[in-house]
Amino acid sequence: MKDKTIRLARNGINDLNEYTPGKPIEEVQREYGLDEIIKMASNENPFGPSPKAIEAMTKAINDVNLYPESSSLMLRQKIAGNFGIHEDMVTLANGADNILGLIAQATVNEGDEIVMGDPTFAAYDTRTRIMGGIPVKVPLKNFTYDLPAVAKKITSKTKLVFVCNPNNPTGTIVTREEVEDFMNSVPQECIVVFDEAYAEFVHPNIYPQTIKYIQDQRNVIMVRTFSKLFGLAGLRVGYAVGPKHLISMLRKVVEPFPVNRLAQSGALAAFDDHAFLNRVLTENEKGKEFLYQQFSKMKMAYCPSHTNFIFVDLGMDGQFVFEKLLEQGIIIRPGGLWNYPQFARITIGTSDQNEKLIEALNIIAG
Amino acid sequence: MKDKTIRLARNGINDLNEYTPGKPIEEVQREYGLDEIIKMASNENPFGPSPKAIEAMTKAINDVNLYPESSSLMLRQKIAGNFGIHEDMVTLANGADNILGLIAQATVNEGDEIVMGDPTFAAYDTRTRIMGGIPVKVPLKNFTYDLPAVAKKITSKTKLVFVCNPNNPTGTIVTREEVEDFMNSVPQECIVVFDEAYAEFVHPNIYPQTIKYIQDQRNVIMVRTFSKLFGLAGLRVGYAVGPKHLISMLRKVVEPFPVNRLAQSGALAAFDDHAFLNRVLTENEKGKEFLYQQFSKMKMAYCPSHTNFIFVDLGMDGQFVFEKLLEQGIIIRPGGLWNYPQFARITIGTSDQNEKLIEALNIIAG
Repeated sequence: MKDKTIRLARNGINDLNEYTPGKPIEEVQREYGLDEIIKMASNENPFGPSPKAIEAMTKAINDVNLYPESSSLMLRQKIAGNFGIHEDMVTLANGADNILGLIAQATVNEGDEIVMGDPTFAAYDTRTRIMGGIPVKVPLKNFTYDLPAVAKKITSKTKLVFVCNPNNPTGTIVTREEVEDFMNSVPQECIVVFDEAYAEFVHPNIYPQTIKYIQDQRNVIMVRTFSKLFGLAGLRVGYAVGPKHLISMLRKVVEPFPVNRLAQSGALAAFDDHAFLNRVLTENEKGKEFLYQQFSKMKMAYCPSHTNFIFVDLGMDGQFVFEKLLEQGIIIRPGGLWNYPQFARITIGTSDQNEKLIEALNIIAG
Repeated sequence: MKDKTIRLARNGINDLNEYTPGKPIEEVQREYGLDEIIKMASNENPFGPSPKAIEAMTKAINDVNLYPESSSLMLRQKIAGNFGIHEDMVTLANGADNILGLIAQATVNEGDEIVMGDPTFAAYDTRTRIMGGIPVKVPLKNFTYDLPAVAKKITSKTKLVFVCNPNNPTGTIVTREEVEDFMNSVPQECIVVFDEAYAEFVHPNIYPQTIKYIQDQRNVIMVRTFSKLFGLAGLRVGYAVGPKHLISMLRKVVEPFPVNRLAQSGALAAFDDHAFLNRVLTENEKGKEFLYQQFSKMKMAYCPSHTNFIFVDLGMDGQFVFEKLLEQGIIIRPGGLWNYPQFARITIGTSDQNEKLIEALNIIAG
């Protein structure tokens, strides 16, 4: 079969693997005979979608026979207003995953070098290789993006730099000052992509003001999502903010109707549901403190997190813990994927979920 | 600005245009001071989404904080069952638009030739050029795909052939026998994509059995959608069926969560809503006959259609008619886009919508 596709596939596609999806919750339920599943594996919002989003989607549901508005105009205007920029500096897509794909499709020629941290969000590597680019990986330092080392890897062949901030899977950030130093050392013609999927969880005082570089016409793209704080992972809405000349490049490769009708309604309503958003932030902080304390009690080290997940050193085989937890209906993400076999990335849940996790972990560790 | 992006963009991207979205219905309403808009421009299903789909989506709406199932497993199983094939021969994406993008991304190298009809669905040209391929356009004959002429254009440089069947914008088909002759003349290593977005509207006796070529391991991909008969254009669900080696190539480039959660629920329910589907087919036939008669009375020639739209020769400037109809809240698609300036592509509506259209056309023609 391999031989058969070599001539059919585009250069480089043959070396790629298919994405291996996780098991559907329903399958885990059936396989382990469980009623309730606690999913702490994908950093979804455990407090559900915003009630205002549910209301807006329910109203829109009878119209799903009609195509969605092509460019998500109202959502673009809402986001642009929030940053005080023109709506032509924003484009929406089918989740931040789709935005990252569009960035690669719009920019990466065969042989271009794309610089990224390691470990970090897997899509940078995948999307680079799909387009025939060469991933250049820079190890984290203290579980954190090492921006001076990243800057040193930029050459005349570098097309893009991906900065995942906060970094997934470690939850750490590079600060405003570190990014300022970095941007002073990056050549003007290099495009820097700040993936800020978890931005809303970070304290604003220390977080980089990416929008400043964009307003200064630097080649910077900021990527954000409605999947995390806004609780709409199932709907697929992500966006890019950048100077008009870069956003225009993304619009040339985006499909005509990337964001579905219900996603547009839901995201628009969720954006202003401050009561919900504040509750999620408060509960997330409480859950984080609780888990920090409990991990410490169990002598498990962790990376202090600026997100809704914690990268924790279990002190034992992560795959073993993953499977043991699965038997009790709790799904986490073991660290082997990122070459940290004793670690896991665990989403901060509701207080009930967090307690059940700790109880189960205590038994396993016990 | 052009100069600025030339080095930033991938080869070939600079020559492309951004997609120009149509005006949102809300804007047309505001601009013309109208309450009701009749949209006959995008071949949506005027009978709304299937009631069963609405019911299923309403149940799923509280869970949109969770990521969708990655590969749309249940939907793949449902579709595979319908064709009597293995689920690994089906892949889902964010509308058929996304499927076409994945096909190009998985196969088109710079300089590859991609053969297609002219005029036909615009995405074949766009997706080819985004990947650096060269569109080779074969004029229609009697408003129909000219398969013998298409076959003659296939060379050793040809990577893909797009056959839009029924063809958009003309609504015509190539028959089972014509496709059989064509497939006998196509080299084994050439990938033939049958875009069958409107397949369900065609009488099965004369329609090609694309699945047969797929089961024979020919390099054939069949593209279908839930946007037309199933009435779910706003949700974005399309799929590809093909031999496993081709579907596997698409899965290497697809994003991890292409089909949103509500789309999966809605499509699964709509697939079996035979009462709804039969009603749509019956009403569409009635509407088609009515419009045929009325067009004939007005001495307007039309292409007999195998879809839910009609390509009609208005006998006057299509852009003029478009604007006149817009004043009365009726949106059609004028033919200038396809270099048929006196034509329009008009979606078959509900009987009420069809009557209003004819009334308005009579006044304009009168």
